Amino acid sequence: MTVKAFQDYYPDHLSYCYGCGRLNEHGHHLQSTWDGDETVAHFTPAPYHISIPGYVYGGLLASLIDCHGTGSAAAAAYRAEGRAMDSEPARRFLTASLHVDYLKPTPLGPELELRGRIAEVKGRKVVVDITLSAAGEVCVKGRVVAVQVPEAYVLQMLGES
Amino acid sequence: MTVKAFQDYYPDHLSYCYGCGRLNEHGHHLQSTWDGDETVAHFTPAPYHISIPGYVYGGLLASLIDCHGTGSAAAAAYRAEGRAMDSEPARRFLTASLHVDYLKPTPLGPELELRGRIAEVKGRKVVVDITLSAAGEVCVKGRVVAVQVPEAYVLQMLGES
Repeated sequence: MTVKAFQDYYPDHLSYCYGCGRLNEHGHHLQSTWDGDETVAHFTPAPYHISIPGYVYGGLLASLIDCHGTGSAAAAAYRAEGRAMDSEPARRFLTASLHVDYLKPTPLGPELELRGRIAEVKGRKVVVDITLSAAGEVCVKGRVVAVQVPEAYVLQMLGES
Repeated sequence: MTVKAFQDYYPDHLSYCYGCGRLNEHGHHLQSTWDGDETVAHFTPAPYHISIPGYVYGGLLASLIDCHGTGSAAAAAYRAEGRAMDSEPARRFLTASLHVDYLKPTPLGPELELRGRIAEVKGRKVVVDITLSAAGEVCVKGRVVAVQVPEAYVLQMLGES
């Protein structure tokens, strides 16, 4: 059985994110899934995604944490309601805030692993704590506060309402 | 007189950053300068730098804040010592932490303006508060905590020591 990523459940109009949208042909196409009670995603930076030669650019790491965080938040909201991500009503999340602590330089080369832990699901807010590791070592920690927005708000942003 | 950007003073081996390195041919080439006591930078996202169609991808905004923050931190360190950025000894900064609050969706289209305010210069640490505006409206606020690292540490990272 093939496991669909959280992002595979996003409708087309929400699938153009540069970080994780399957329809953004220039983007990173990050894919996040459950692994027990944690969420996980993997990404291998391009050779030019560097801060200094040999080390990954911190802005990319922040981006990956952001997308893994909002994806995890959506998945957590559906799981908290005990239903599948393709069931209605839809739960859409935007990032309210992002915090990233760079613990040590992240080496370029190894595939990076992001692991998310759902810290809080409360009302419209989901908080996700994320570690980013390279070759088994945690290099970066992040926290994403995501807020659920009504589908009508999303459609208004898109000029479709 | 042409004003050089902070990043123009970085030595070649520190000029490959995807966000602001002048020698990274794939990167964003962000350039930051003083404007009185504030630091300023401008950037126009590409059409594919989106979260949803019509709005800029939050990961890119975090990246711009990160690079403008470390550049501003370096500039502030030299200014605090009353000397030019091409004088010795060199002051090199890495991001320790990055915090970003997304206040409202950032529209795609207008040139974005980043403005930095030096909140603290203390020992090896510089804290920079940054606003990111589109068409005159602040859409995102950020805080970068940058720490000065010895040049020897940078060279060790590069495998040159």
